[in-house]
Amino acid sequence: MRDAFQGELDHLRNGLVEMTQLVGFAMARATNALLEADLALAESVISHDKAIDQRRDELEEKACDLLVRQQPVVATDLRTVITSLQMTADIERMGDLALHVAKVARMRYPASAVPPEMVALLMEMGHLAQRIVTKAGSVVASRDVSAALELEASDDEMDHLHARMFRTLMSPDWPHGIQTAVDLSQLARFYERYADHAVSVARRVVYLVTGEWPVSTSD
Amino acid sequence: MRDAFQGELDHLRNGLVEMTQLVGFAMARATNALLEADLALAESVISHDKAIDQRRDELEEKACDLLVRQQPVVATDLRTVITSLQMTADIERMGDLALHVAKVARMRYPASAVPPEMVALLMEMGHLAQRIVTKAGSVVASRDVSAALELEASDDEMDHLHARMFRTLMSPDWPHGIQTAVDLSQLARFYERYADHAVSVARRVVYLVTGEWPVSTSD
Repeated sequence: MRDAFQGELDHLRNGLVEMTQLVGFAMARATNALLEADLALAESVISHDKAIDQRRDELEEKACDLLVRQQPVVATDLRTVITSLQMTADIERMGDLALHVAKVARMRYPASAVPPEMVALLMEMGHLAQRIVTKAGSVVASRDVSAALELEASDDEMDHLHARMFRTLMSPDWPHGIQTAVDLSQLARFYERYADHAVSVARRVVYLVTGEWPVSTSD
Repeated sequence: MRDAFQGELDHLRNGLVEMTQLVGFAMARATNALLEADLALAESVISHDKAIDQRRDELEEKACDLLVRQQPVVATDLRTVITSLQMTADIERMGDLALHVAKVARMRYPASAVPPEMVALLMEMGHLAQRIVTKAGSVVASRDVSAALELEASDDEMDHLHARMFRTLMSPDWPHGIQTAVDLSQLARFYERYADHAVSVARRVVYLVTGEWPVSTSD
């Protein structure tokens, strides 16, 4: 009985890792669609978001089903299932943020939302998002607390890129007008929130393993 | 035993209703701080957010504790507890969005982030946010499915205000420069997300009562 329960918890965990891969892939493709003004790719990211939502529904269903059927008597088992549900919500939200990036690409097509001299910064945000989501996936798989804590540093890095974007587009000699500035400020926020949710996933892993919430290094 | 469980579920529900009041109050005060460039009020909203987070932690604790101690054998009871946990997360996030509004007010102080001719629109968003969060609180208390479904209409109204804000600040004769445009675009998004989370709470109530997810009228 207990073994069966552990087996199902492992299944749940694998499902979460897979979901991080899906939303990582979605953000990678959304970033490409954005930087290359690739409408077909943007449309593909947008339509694929439903599959991520569906995966979330399946995992939620599975977790609830597990609680009803197996009636965990050990508090930590219960906590694992509840935390998985919360991680599912975080990861699904990361998928939404990739979707938002793709929608900006689609809205500005055939133009690009990103002026040439801002491409490098956006690309940096995109690459950092990939590193962060990959790390979050490994943390879910390995339950490695020190790797989880490292994620906060990567998140600080994203906050710096976000701040740099804002400084650039609010500088008095910004040449690209309001629409581009607003687009870029929204995009920067999408990447920043994406990283925040990945950190939230990692923090939940720390809580699962140690029973304590990690002290946040940033606010 | 079953009565005790129902009593604790009622407690949980009351806690959720209280949380909607807290985040409603936070957004009302944040909106005032923003429109009146009131630094003390903004600081008060910002420092009060911790109390909302703490209320969330208490409710989460209570819900988990309930699952461990009472071991619900009826699937709907379990579903009620899980859904309460999810609503707690939504409502806490609404508090964060009020906090973000207050932070914009603080950042631009002693100036106002909102130019005079945009005050009316922002005020409209603030009032609508109040109507929406109040309605969400009643829906949690009453489990009234038709009231829950009405919330989607209010959310559509918020989307329209959001779109109107964007049209205004992207019009070629926008006179206030980039910083104000970016501030307003972010603010509009905070109100819009606030409403989205309130709708999410209402949709979860519908699911609890009917066992079906309501068909969304918007995307």
